[in-house]
Amino acid sequence: MEAMLKFSPHLDTKSICYLSPKPMITLHQNFLPLKRSRVIMCFSSSPGYLDNIRKSLIRQEDTIIFSLLERVQYSDDSVRDNDGLFSDYFEWTIVEHMIIEKEKLYAKLGRYKSEEENPFFPQQLPRSIVVPQQYPKILHRCADSININDKIWPIYFTEIVPELLKARNNDECGSIIPELVKAGNNVECGSIAVCDILCLQALSKRIHYGKFVAEAKFQDARSEYEAAIKAKDRKLLLELVTYETVEAIVKKRVELKAKTFGQVVKIDEENVANPTYKIKPSFIPKLFEDIVMPFTKEVQVEYLLRRLD
Amino acid sequence: MEAMLKFSPHLDTKSICYLSPKPMITLHQNFLPLKRSRVIMCFSSSPGYLDNIRKSLIRQEDTIIFSLLERVQYSDDSVRDNDGLFSDYFEWTIVEHMIIEKEKLYAKLGRYKSEEENPFFPQQLPRSIVVPQQYPKILHRCADSININDKIWPIYFTEIVPELLKARNNDECGSIIPELVKAGNNVECGSIAVCDILCLQALSKRIHYGKFVAEAKFQDARSEYEAAIKAKDRKLLLELVTYETVEAIVKKRVELKAKTFGQVVKIDEENVANPTYKIKPSFIPKLFEDIVMPFTKEVQVEYLLRRLD
Repeated sequence: MEAMLKFSPHLDTKSICYLSPKPMITLHQNFLPLKRSRVIMCFSSSPGYLDNIRKSLIRQEDTIIFSLLERVQYSDDSVRDNDGLFSDYFEWTIVEHMIIEKEKLYAKLGRYKSEEENPFFPQQLPRSIVVPQQYPKILHRCADSININDKIWPIYFTEIVPELLKARNNDECGSIIPELVKAGNNVECGSIAVCDILCLQALSKRIHYGKFVAEAKFQDARSEYEAAIKAKDRKLLLELVTYETVEAIVKKRVELKAKTFGQVVKIDEENVANPTYKIKPSFIPKLFEDIVMPFTKEVQVEYLLRRLD
Repeated sequence: MEAMLKFSPHLDTKSICYLSPKPMITLHQNFLPLKRSRVIMCFSSSPGYLDNIRKSLIRQEDTIIFSLLERVQYSDDSVRDNDGLFSDYFEWTIVEHMIIEKEKLYAKLGRYKSEEENPFFPQQLPRSIVVPQQYPKILHRCADSININDKIWPIYFTEIVPELLKARNNDECGSIIPELVKAGNNVECGSIAVCDILCLQALSKRIHYGKFVAEAKFQDARSEYEAAIKAKDRKLLLELVTYETVEAIVKKRVELKAKTFGQVVKIDEENVANPTYKIKPSFIPKLFEDIVMPFTKEVQVEYLLRRLD
């Protein structure tokens, strides 16, 4: 770890103690109770760190696909409105109510002190009851001000879920009364909300990881980015963060993952010779091409524009 | 649907109305706000229903494997105790606190009115705020009294998680500081708790599905089971519900699923020729053989012993 850290000029002894034999730094999921410290992560001296961002992004693809494979078992009708579900007036839909309550719980447990996590309903959050600890800071402080979940939320319900259900294998339904799931019904709305929240959180995390990607790219070609940032040139910044060959590889990989993880596994030869899929595999690369990658680049550009503040 | 229902002698008009064009019955996951009615599901006249139980059980295998594949990214140290995580005295570990709060939320949304769902902390639950609806009853009322989560919980933490982490591919770690995950740390305890809860709920649902399996078997060979039940012959009941050939097929299928879903997918030939796995595939059939299937049969026997009450 020490080798991965470079101290800011004003480093004090309070900061040095964070560099313990078992430093409390991780970027893997969501839950690091993080308080800003004055230790600056130095990317240029930590190639292993860049490799780990890449690894984490690749692993998050699996999480997104697993979540969608769980979600696809259900209809989408339930999440549209409360549909007479609650006896009294209820201001939220069931999925809104559930995610608000879960985010309150997670906030109490320090989730949103992690640089990786971005709540969907930030205005509702209580304070953490977890002992604050200080960790090396990885992102520029501007990262806290970037949260595009208000864009991810509507697109998930109006575009992703309907397309997902169109891409569904018609046999893909765990219900004992499959007709209900195909017809749509409101009796599974709780289960659907649970799945929707897992999908939304997985997509949100992957998209907001653009902050870490942007920081890595900035550290890697500082002068080039500084010029574009100073000129507030969004178009140029978008070009700078776009690597078409990398995007092509990502699409190829997630399609292969969709074919692998999305298989309906049967213990007969037929399965190997002629596999069936829970979701049409082409849905996943399209999701990444149309939504995940553009949003990730939007986060990168937003982060870079504020990187010199 | 009508064809699937046989009325009990005392059926009243109140029950008939539940047989609407879109009957509110589903056994697929967790969240059907269910209130007992006096319409009895007749298995003998619904072969499709038995097939759907089987389908749901098979689909739940995928859910269990996906959850474990997510869990295996983390160390297990964090869940053991609070480890100075909370400033004040806190009576629960983070995973206990999180599941209690989630079960309270789910209870308010009617989850535990579903015959499929069994909470881990039933004594903590508030009343549902969801409008109660009446549905055809599928299980005998004794089903409500059967909940072996108090056995699943400790075995999950003392046996399943340690064995899962032993079975982990050493590269399987999404953390940006992999050493931390391998060494164990308490900074990911929230993420670990989220995964543990998903694994516990998936295992609990699959195991308690034994109630539906037992009901189906009972309906299928009523006289044979009645004799054993009246004699309170646990040993005989266990023999009656045990089909070794079926168990062998389940183990074969879940191992194939572990090899398929657990692959580390890479876009090169090497991947196809010589796949690597996130979890040693043999772990999954062993989990089913040693824990899932024995517990499921325990639930079946408990249900059958009370089936004539």
